[in-house]
Amino acid sequence: MSEQILTACLLWHCPDKRGLVAQIAQFLFDRGGNIMDLDVHVDENLFFLRLTWDMSRFSIPADKLEEAFLPLARQHDASYSIRVNQKKRRLAILVSQYGHCLQEILWRHNLREFDVDIPLILSNHEDLRSLAEQYRIPFHLFPITPDNKAQQEELEIKLLKEEQVETIVLARYMQILSPRFVAEYPNRMINIHHSFLPAFVGGSPYRQAYERGVKIVGATCHYVTDKLDEGQIIEQDIIRISHKDSIEDLIRKGRDLERFVLARGIRLHLEDRVLVHGRKTIVFD
Amino acid sequence: MSEQILTACLLWHCPDKRGLVAQIAQFLFDRGGNIMDLDVHVDENLFFLRLTWDMSRFSIPADKLEEAFLPLARQHDASYSIRVNQKKRRLAILVSQYGHCLQEILWRHNLREFDVDIPLILSNHEDLRSLAEQYRIPFHLFPITPDNKAQQEELEIKLLKEEQVETIVLARYMQILSPRFVAEYPNRMINIHHSFLPAFVGGSPYRQAYERGVKIVGATCHYVTDKLDEGQIIEQDIIRISHKDSIEDLIRKGRDLERFVLARGIRLHLEDRVLVHGRKTIVFD
Amino acid sequence: MSEQILTACLLWHCPDKRGLVAQIAQFLFDRGGNIMDLDVHVDENLFFLRLTWDMSRFSIPADKLEEAFLPLARQHDASYSIRVNQKKRRLAILVSQYGHCLQEILWRHNLREFDVDIPLILSNHEDLRSLAEQYRIPFHLFPITPDNKAQQEELEIKLLKEEQVETIVLARYMQILSPRFVAEYPNRMINIHHSFLPAFVGGSPYRQAYERGVKIVGATCHYVTDKLDEGQIIEQDIIRISHKDSIEDLIRKGRDLERFVLARGIRLHLEDRVLVHGRKTIVFD
Amino acid sequence: MSEQILTACLLWHCPDKRGLVAQIAQFLFDRGGNIMDLDVHVDENLFFLRLTWDMSRFSIPADKLEEAFLPLARQHDASYSIRVNQKKRRLAILVSQYGHCLQEILWRHNLREFDVDIPLILSNHEDLRSLAEQYRIPFHLFPITPDNKAQQEELEIKLLKEEQVETIVLARYMQILSPRFVAEYPNRMINIHHSFLPAFVGGSPYRQAYERGVKIVGATCHYVTDKLDEGQIIEQDIIRISHKDSIEDLIRKGRDLERFVLARGIRLHLEDRVLVHGRKTIVFD
Repeated sequence: MSEQILTACLLWHCPDKRGLVAQIAQFLFDRGGNIMDLDVHVDENLFFLRLTWDMSRFSIPADKLEEAFLPLARQHDASYSIRVNQKKRRLAILVSQYGHCLQEILWRHNLREFDVDIPLILSNHEDLRSLAEQYRIPFHLFPITPDNKAQQEELEIKLLKEEQVETIVLARYMQILSPRFVAEYPNRMINIHHSFLPAFVGGSPYRQAYERGVKIVGATCHYVTDKLDEGQIIEQDIIRISHKDSIEDLIRKGRDLERFVLARGIRLHLEDRVLVHGRKTIVFD
Repeated sequence: MSEQILTACLLWHCPDKRGLVAQIAQFLFDRGGNIMDLDVHVDENLFFLRLTWDMSRFSIPADKLEEAFLPLARQHDASYSIRVNQKKRRLAILVSQYGHCLQEILWRHNLREFDVDIPLILSNHEDLRSLAEQYRIPFHLFPITPDNKAQQEELEIKLLKEEQVETIVLARYMQILSPRFVAEYPNRMINIHHSFLPAFVGGSPYRQAYERGVKIVGATCHYVTDKLDEGQIIEQDIIRISHKDSIEDLIRKGRDLERFVLARGIRLHLEDRVLVHGRKTIVFD
Repeated sequence: MSEQILTACLLWHCPDKRGLVAQIAQFLFDRGGNIMDLDVHVDENLFFLRLTWDMSRFSIPADKLEEAFLPLARQHDASYSIRVNQKKRRLAILVSQYGHCLQEILWRHNLREFDVDIPLILSNHEDLRSLAEQYRIPFHLFPITPDNKAQQEELEIKLLKEEQVETIVLARYMQILSPRFVAEYPNRMINIHHSFLPAFVGGSPYRQAYERGVKIVGATCHYVTDKLDEGQIIEQDIIRISHKDSIEDLIRKGRDLERFVLARGIRLHLEDRVLVHGRKTIVFD
Repeated sequence: MSEQILTACLLWHCPDKRGLVAQIAQFLFDRGGNIMDLDVHVDENLFFLRLTWDMSRFSIPADKLEEAFLPLARQHDASYSIRVNQKKRRLAILVSQYGHCLQEILWRHNLREFDVDIPLILSNHEDLRSLAEQYRIPFHLFPITPDNKAQQEELEIKLLKEEQVETIVLARYMQILSPRFVAEYPNRMINIHHSFLPAFVGGSPYRQAYERGVKIVGATCHYVTDKLDEGQIIEQDIIRISHKDSIEDLIRKGRDLERFVLARGIRLHLEDRVLVHGRKTIVFD
């Protein structure tokens, strides 16, 4: 991440067809691009591709890339996105009262593990303001009640748009967002759920795990969709527990899991390694 | 497992109380027992203990042990079981058509990883007869139809009793046993379920996992109770998967998981390391 | 692995250069090949590629493929290998007295997890003959003494050549092969070492691990080179241990690790997913 | 950790002997102690024990405990230590320039995951002063040169004694301490080494791992002894890597491993779960 040569990353999927790779690679070669990383996945007549190339001698400027790929994409009925490493994404974090995930993200961001700008943090509680300030990131309070929820969400969306936020991370945000809010960030809103989904959907998963007597607990990083805890899974991991662990122990051990799984999920998303398809993700890692 | 000195293992639980360890340890000392392994777990005013001692100079013979502990157990309102390593348990395996778990158990048994006798294998299909014969274990066929199920189960139970079977392992046995059958082997009938319970209960868990797009699949070894896939969990483990894995890959990878998790579960049970309490297990490992 | 459409797999590496992917993909497209899987890795001006394509409408027959790629390879100063799935590799297994790795390989082979033919097993001991026979694979005994070693190896090499063996697996073979033997199978002789290399090189790694008091033991699957335990690593894995584990426990637990790590290494090799470069491997998994 | 009832923890080892548990348990019972947790390990005629009891009705006051056990210990030729949860240990952290381990410890300490006081941080560099100040812990600078090393160490030892420090954590401290310094804190000085010991002893383990082409890297938390990286291992863990990972990636991934393994090691030590015996540890977890 240190030596910042200009690169572009293409995520692409379309119906499979002979000659796709040749055509895309030729397109890049003709314009002076050198492929640095390429991963192709073909599954049931669908073609998925992630491609990174060196832009330093590329004949098309960064801001015309999207447009330049349009004819090729139309020809193959493809969905695609392109991102240039020069232009950082803008990410906002929504939090409530638990600080461990926020702390982990900010700490990693500070070490430049994430190639992103974090212009603001939103919360429905005051608790984490000082943590945000420690890292000098503006903290905005939007208290939520049943009565004001719709209104407050509109104000939040307005602020996020003003700040040109592209990706949202729910770092143990304890409110369920309305479909209206979710719809603004399709495949760009990331949540951490503190269980191994689809086990223990909904509230108090550690308590559920404790009562069921499982020997392993998990955490799941996923995109947010309309349906609670049903979004496409980006990353999961687990940790062993035993009869010796109280619910408090599960919460403590789970904190470690949550922050790591969320951090890995965020990194995969920010490096354009995640392609959503239907109920699933293709993760080019 | 090689040097067979005579040892006994006590599993005990009762309401917690001052002086329990002193009393039990004194009881053993007074009779010439030397403690080799001891693990105590106290949880919400319940006292759980696993204790192994050297019987070589113990004044009570092996076959009077159960009786000898009765007064102490009554005094403390305790449940307990005692087993002497000399007397091997008798274990039966129920299978259908998948051979991987059976193969794994027989192979380990042959290497003397399990301290047990396996007098018979029961199946509702012919497929695994030759595998059983390879290891010279009698194979009994009980074909099951909706009509004959109750009858066949009675014959199976009769045979198991004749053979003095104490523990039953369902090694991917594809029939649901009746409550009547299950009730004969409380906390002594072990199943392997090919998912990370409570995720993907019921049929085709690998297909469910594939369709949900999880990044990890699991297997669960548990005791069988009346409620399907609700029994107390003995052991679980997981394996990472990705978008590249087809359902066939999940089945293949899952086979490895199933045989290992089941083998570990069986071993824990046979070494008297599992104490069932309510919906959970205490595993002294 | 069931539906056997004809596919070819190319492993290729050469100095990096603009247009390589385009040229290779175009080469395939021009001849009617449809790319099914493609993975490119660029590292310090070296270009590594694994490419699988559907041969069903390919204009070049399978037995002319190697030749057909030669001009392209020369132009780019590339090393490459091509294999068609139709033509199974021939693999020989060398064993001594421990049967667990052999058993695991034969069992998986029987379940068609490995796309390979196993025409023979060689051993310096009689012990595993019956296991080989169970799976109906010819077993050849070559007892080794310090005096006859060179001679016996020549006979073994002769037999392996007659049988057109392409890959050799040392499944806990307890003799060190001579450089002469090793040189016959460059990057095609696979060993399992029962430690996490480079820790505990050489003899009795479990004893070494026990005495050092490590909390984790490992196993390493690697290619065999002239230098003992210095070959390129294909796969590694670990298992947790504790102070409760005796050396016998480490050996028992290690067995599970060894057979899994070896099986995974063999599979990666047989699926042409391993490219050796210098002291390392590129594993396209 | 919330409900602070007064408890004591005994770590004890001595030659094995009939009646040890009975005698110790009786000793506690006679004085009104209720056992909350007990773990016994017997290995080659040595007896190791960890025992926690409720002190709320114990007839011996906390500050007389050590003395009270002396006769029993002498009788059995035992080594032992006792700690009462009321009296927090005092821990000092030595750091240089890498902040990730320090950050992790302070963050967890702040969440009360560690039952300890941290009166001071020592460093040979200025870099981490602000982090220490954020958590309001005094930061002391002791710059080290080859010329002043012995002198500076004396000053450090003096300060540590004044502050009644009992345990020292080297959180990526980049100086090798003199035997004189190490001898002051036998079995009470904890280091994190960024490799899976005994692999990659000494400097630049990530570079060594990268060059060897391993598929897994590790971290090791151990007590510090005279011999570099030879101390008794408390905890280890690993993470998978691949050919895609540069040395920078190993360093980044390793950071996560280091902070977790160190945190777990510290917690085990602070909870009196680690008993050092010869070159090894018994970890009662």
